[in-house]
Amino acid sequence: MRMIDIIEKKRDGHELTTEEIQFFIHGYTSGAIPDYQASALAMAIFFQDMTEKERADLTMAMVHSGATIDLSGIEGIKVDKHSTGGVGDTTTLILAPLVAAVGVPVAKMSGRGLGHTGGTIDKLESIAGFHVEMTNGQFIELVNKNKVAVIGQSENLTPADKKLYGLRDVTGTVNSIPLIASSIMCKKIAAGADAIVLDVKTGAGAFMKTEESAIELAHAMVKIGNNVGRQTIAVISDMSQPLGFAIGNALEVKEAIDTLRGQGPKDLTELVLTLGSQMVVLAKKADSMEEARKMLTVVIKNGQAIEKFKEFVSSQGGDASVVDHPEYLPQASYQIDVPAKVDGTVSEIIADEIGKAATMLGAGRATKEDVIDLAVGLVLHKKIGDAVKKGESLITIHSNREDVHDVMEKIYENIRISNHADVPKLIHTIMTV
Amino acid sequence: MRMIDIIEKKRDGHELTTEEIQFFIHGYTSGAIPDYQASALAMAIFFQDMTEKERADLTMAMVHSGATIDLSGIEGIKVDKHSTGGVGDTTTLILAPLVAAVGVPVAKMSGRGLGHTGGTIDKLESIAGFHVEMTNGQFIELVNKNKVAVIGQSENLTPADKKLYGLRDVTGTVNSIPLIASSIMCKKIAAGADAIVLDVKTGAGAFMKTEESAIELAHAMVKIGNNVGRQTIAVISDMSQPLGFAIGNALEVKEAIDTLRGQGPKDLTELVLTLGSQMVVLAKKADSMEEARKMLTVVIKNGQAIEKFKEFVSSQGGDASVVDHPEYLPQASYQIDVPAKVDGTVSEIIADEIGKAATMLGAGRATKEDVIDLAVGLVLHKKIGDAVKKGESLITIHSNREDVHDVMEKIYENIRISNHADVPKLIHTIMTV
Repeated sequence: MRMIDIIEKKRDGHELTTEEIQFFIHGYTSGAIPDYQASALAMAIFFQDMTEKERADLTMAMVHSGATIDLSGIEGIKVDKHSTGGVGDTTTLILAPLVAAVGVPVAKMSGRGLGHTGGTIDKLESIAGFHVEMTNGQFIELVNKNKVAVIGQSENLTPADKKLYGLRDVTGTVNSIPLIASSIMCKKIAAGADAIVLDVKTGAGAFMKTEESAIELAHAMVKIGNNVGRQTIAVISDMSQPLGFAIGNALEVKEAIDTLRGQGPKDLTELVLTLGSQMVVLAKKADSMEEARKMLTVVIKNGQAIEKFKEFVSSQGGDASVVDHPEYLPQASYQIDVPAKVDGTVSEIIADEIGKAATMLGAGRATKEDVIDLAVGLVLHKKIGDAVKKGESLITIHSNREDVHDVMEKIYENIRISNHADVPKLIHTIMTV
Repeated sequence: MRMIDIIEKKRDGHELTTEEIQFFIHGYTSGAIPDYQASALAMAIFFQDMTEKERADLTMAMVHSGATIDLSGIEGIKVDKHSTGGVGDTTTLILAPLVAAVGVPVAKMSGRGLGHTGGTIDKLESIAGFHVEMTNGQFIELVNKNKVAVIGQSENLTPADKKLYGLRDVTGTVNSIPLIASSIMCKKIAAGADAIVLDVKTGAGAFMKTEESAIELAHAMVKIGNNVGRQTIAVISDMSQPLGFAIGNALEVKEAIDTLRGQGPKDLTELVLTLGSQMVVLAKKADSMEEARKMLTVVIKNGQAIEKFKEFVSSQGGDASVVDHPEYLPQASYQIDVPAKVDGTVSEIIADEIGKAATMLGAGRATKEDVIDLAVGLVLHKKIGDAVKKGESLITIHSNREDVHDVMEKIYENIRISNHADVPKLIHTIMTV
């Protein structure tokens, strides 16, 4: 088999065989196939797309390019959740203890990542003492005991994906549905998921700006999952404005606690119940969405959800007293309000730009080496459709620097107040095949 | 400027600026831009094509990536001829002395190359003593004196093209009209051509198998030439069957001598007169094709053409007595006839396969390291449309090995004898813009 023939075959619009895809991924991972052939193939895929079969083959070839996590020691169906990322997205922090509280095992591998704020692990490290260092054995034991644990990302999972993603990033081949979908799915499968719930964001703050492209990506991932024997569903949700109110690491932990107590923002709560219900049904802990939703609502109301969060935090070394004393979380030195300049209705809050305002305060990383300030961020007081009076606070800036005129300017530029607002639909679609 | 932006711009179908193309070629030549970005761009060009302006810019950027030959010391308009290559194509050997005999300066840079037989220099080296080693100064002096000289290819011309061609060869991006056209044209321009006559072959023995693709390539090259100030015309000629009768190095030299004497094969003579007339007109030695053709016919008839060949050969150290004593050329040990098995009309002689039969005898190189046997090859006795009797020789094999059953088998497989033949048109089109 020769790589040149594989490139030309794809270039000319033909379907690659399982063996050809394995030959490429194996050779590329080992270094036998050079970057310049891999980038030519990636560009050919950009133009010629991949069939369903090719996408599944590519995903599984990347899964088998490195180590895989064996979660068979955990009782029950392991359902993983993945979000394509957005601004103020606190769902994992809430969902993990919430579905664990109704008996769904959550064995979560999480990262730090780049973005407007840190990853799930960064957020959890706002809690004094919390850590994710443990052996796979301890991790499995912890999930069996508490139904929930979070561990750091393993270094040796899906090396082909890491290498290929790095190459795509510099060769104009990131924006290809089969390559994005297989990249996401291979990581979930290598991390041991039996079933997968995908939260695909759409809108200004999302990677997929249009609903059409979000649906295309969601469809691709659901198909891959189901074709490789992992039941997969996708929820397409709005990311035109930030989700919930909080953007920032400790601020989002506080918001997660509020939500687990039933006092969270309406949109965040709704999304968590939607995604959580899917997870509960996939884990076969409920027969219908209605039943699952009721179970989740019950554990929020009766306090079992927040108790599960405390147990989860303590068992990983964290100080669970933050739940009752949110002032124990890192606090920023300055709280500065951004007052509305006119009366009206909030008609636009451009998610990615508001996210950048949080990054300007130090809430996120631009490079792996950046150090995150866990205390800083933004808390929104208004969402699209809310009425506002001149002088009323739109957002509170939590900052460790006194002069925030740059951040304030960024915020004013990206919030519109009009006579009228079209409130974006939170849940666009739920896709099962 | 960033290469990633250039790749994405082309990928999305936009026209690159002159500066962007120069940035790419300059950076790729210097090594600042890695192979994996160049191959991604080449694949994007494969799919998105290039505009006329981009093709001209790419050509000139490659011209300026290395040294260029200054032929301004030679009086007159320097017209170069380029053939896209075929089987038994002896035209350069004939054209160089022929047009020189009517006063057109021919400063020919030639190669050895891979293929069914050697390149022009290999063929000329069949003549004892002939060499192409000289300084640029000596070369220019020789052209001014005799109107014709041949020099070996300079190592440092168009390094960008060499590097890019090597990359395209292993990344499935050879077969792209803008990349093929600019690759050919940049070499001619860097070698100092003022005007260019292109012989674009079409048919089984050519790189461009269909007339449509040959026309597309010819059109692309003519446009580039004229857009960068080098008057360029293209002749699209048949290569479904071999050109002339001889395939092999010394055998083609003998055929060239015959043709310069007016005793050559009809098709070869016609093509040489067509290409030669274009060269004479572009060099402004005649006002019309008819006048040019008449001038060339005269020098063939009156012996000035063959005398010019002798002068050219002697002045580069060669033994010009081969002209009157072709037996001084390398001779193969065995001459073996391939008799027709039936009566009929020759209806097909598949050029590339017959070329391979010559390579099997040792007439050509598969890799740069291969040593050519200058004596061996094939001489056809029949062309498409000729009547043949059972037992009559179709081809004589000139071989230095006694057992040629493999070559004979190859020949029988690729010559058809039927009741009827469609004789292919020799000159398909002449394209000036």
